[in-house]
Amino acid sequence: MTATIHPLRPRSEPPSLNRLLTLCAPDLNAVNQVIVDRMQSRVSLIPELAGHLIAGGGKRLRPLLTLACARLFDYGGTRHHKLAACVEFIHTATLLHDDVVDGSDLRRGKVTANNVWGNPASVLVGDFLFSRSFELMVEDGSLKVLKILSHASAVIAEGEVAQLTAQRDVETSEDRYLEIITAKTAVLFAAACQIAAVVAERGGQSESALESYGRNLGIAFQLIDDAIDYVSDAETMGKDCGDDFRDGKVTLPVILAHARGTDAERRFWRDAMLGRANGDEELARATALLRTSGAIDDTLARARIYGGRAIDALAGFPHGAPRDALIETVEFAIARAF
Amino acid sequence: MTATIHPLRPRSEPPSLNRLLTLCAPDLNAVNQVIVDRMQSRVSLIPELAGHLIAGGGKRLRPLLTLACARLFDYGGTRHHKLAACVEFIHTATLLHDDVVDGSDLRRGKVTANNVWGNPASVLVGDFLFSRSFELMVEDGSLKVLKILSHASAVIAEGEVAQLTAQRDVETSEDRYLEIITAKTAVLFAAACQIAAVVAERGGQSESALESYGRNLGIAFQLIDDAIDYVSDAETMGKDCGDDFRDGKVTLPVILAHARGTDAERRFWRDAMLGRANGDEELARATALLRTSGAIDDTLARARIYGGRAIDALAGFPHGAPRDALIETVEFAIARAF
Repeated sequence: MTATIHPLRPRSEPPSLNRLLTLCAPDLNAVNQVIVDRMQSRVSLIPELAGHLIAGGGKRLRPLLTLACARLFDYGGTRHHKLAACVEFIHTATLLHDDVVDGSDLRRGKVTANNVWGNPASVLVGDFLFSRSFELMVEDGSLKVLKILSHASAVIAEGEVAQLTAQRDVETSEDRYLEIITAKTAVLFAAACQIAAVVAERGGQSESALESYGRNLGIAFQLIDDAIDYVSDAETMGKDCGDDFRDGKVTLPVILAHARGTDAERRFWRDAMLGRANGDEELARATALLRTSGAIDDTLARARIYGGRAIDALAGFPHGAPRDALIETVEFAIARAF
Repeated sequence: MTATIHPLRPRSEPPSLNRLLTLCAPDLNAVNQVIVDRMQSRVSLIPELAGHLIAGGGKRLRPLLTLACARLFDYGGTRHHKLAACVEFIHTATLLHDDVVDGSDLRRGKVTANNVWGNPASVLVGDFLFSRSFELMVEDGSLKVLKILSHASAVIAEGEVAQLTAQRDVETSEDRYLEIITAKTAVLFAAACQIAAVVAERGGQSESALESYGRNLGIAFQLIDDAIDYVSDAETMGKDCGDDFRDGKVTLPVILAHARGTDAERRFWRDAMLGRANGDEELARATALLRTSGAIDDTLARARIYGGRAIDALAGFPHGAPRDALIETVEFAIARAF
């Protein structure tokens, strides 16, 4: 593959993760091996439960970001394999606890671990994966990496509590919402990218650029997810359209539509998010309001802005397959909604 | 205080934690300050919920062990303050998740956090404290300390899952039970002590000795707790007598009584632990069986063995107030049951 100028592919081909996967395939095999090795335990429930989620169709997006970012620097070592596994463990632990907190029955189209093994097992195996991720970082031995990832974990946990506090609150401001999704989602994307620069021993400028790439990609990703929940169907999403609505999850589309609504519409949103009126009929009305208020379009527009920032953050890196793959990852994230 | 030969106090005075508390009072104030500072968050639910448990009458036994062990070496620095807080955060996170897993309503005679704020909040604030504990360790910057504490965390989590797997299983062997309580309880005691030697930059022999002291003390502590549940009343224990029985917790007294029982007695224990027959009448029969089978006496005898090992592990350290305090801590742990 050689350096290309945008567009990276024929206009007829939608952006995908193929470029990222091709670039990182051998590294990803090594990461998967670390993941499988390190989720083992004499306590058989641990690999069973963790394997259900880890083997269960995740895209490995976060570890792939670490791997692709390391390729930006032609990094030739193997430290990033363990650290990418560590990032995936943190992510998996978070998902296990999220599903307990939300009482979710489905994840990625599969029945959730808490549904199969119960909440106690999901809480404790999540704790195990989280601890194991710290062991992996400590084995790497870089205090800088440890600082980035331990801080990311604390911010994620704080973001989760913040989200719980803001639950079902339609008065959540856009700023507050962005803070929450930055903490909950984008900070781990950012850390996954930044640590590649640390491992490759590049300076602070490369670290900042990749941190920015990951953070902005993460926000874009989440905003697109928020929009898709109101415009997609189960087949394309792997979750049912309207799940967020039925769960009373206040996402950016709802925040915008509520803020722009009449008194009656605001009451509608409040009742819906509180679970008082959130059936199919209300979902249809919600979808209509989101369209007419421009809330969906504006959520997507914001996602594109963050996506653009992510791409711009890569400006200082040489053209080539790794940069192309990272750019197409952003385009893929955005294109899912169109 | 000067070095003394056993007994440390007049025979008429029961052993207490007073010596430990007096020795460590100024350091403990510093630790409490770190704890209060570092459980803060803009998300007010975090200090509220964490404070409920952290301020709620815990003995701070684990951080006190770190402090007293550091005094063995006349350590004059302050690194152990942050690390002792870190140990307390790990412990608190574990308690929060334990109470969710067990569905507990009371802890230390107070209503549990999950009862007040709900399971989701307890899970997520536990995650926050756990992450924060890692941030504190990383700030300390010693890879050796990081290795000890991250490994301890992973072992604790693994032990928790193992306990969940063995739940209500009267066929659990004594060996398996000791493994579980070592992982769940004793490993954090051990780590709390060992890190003091690391911080004071003593050799591996001091580390091993303190690891052994902590681990054996932890096992003794847990075994005494197990026995007390069948021989004490709510006032001395802070929990109701028979709680473990009613919760179907298979502890060493039950394992021994079951193993030594007739077929009918084994059925009794199985039914009781499965929650089929565990009312007041059955509790009375259980207590009687535990006495007649010698299960309580033998649990206490084993606890004394572990306590003795803990004291023996201190043999290489100079006589003086810190060693006396650590010895009396063991005596206190054991004496609670008598």
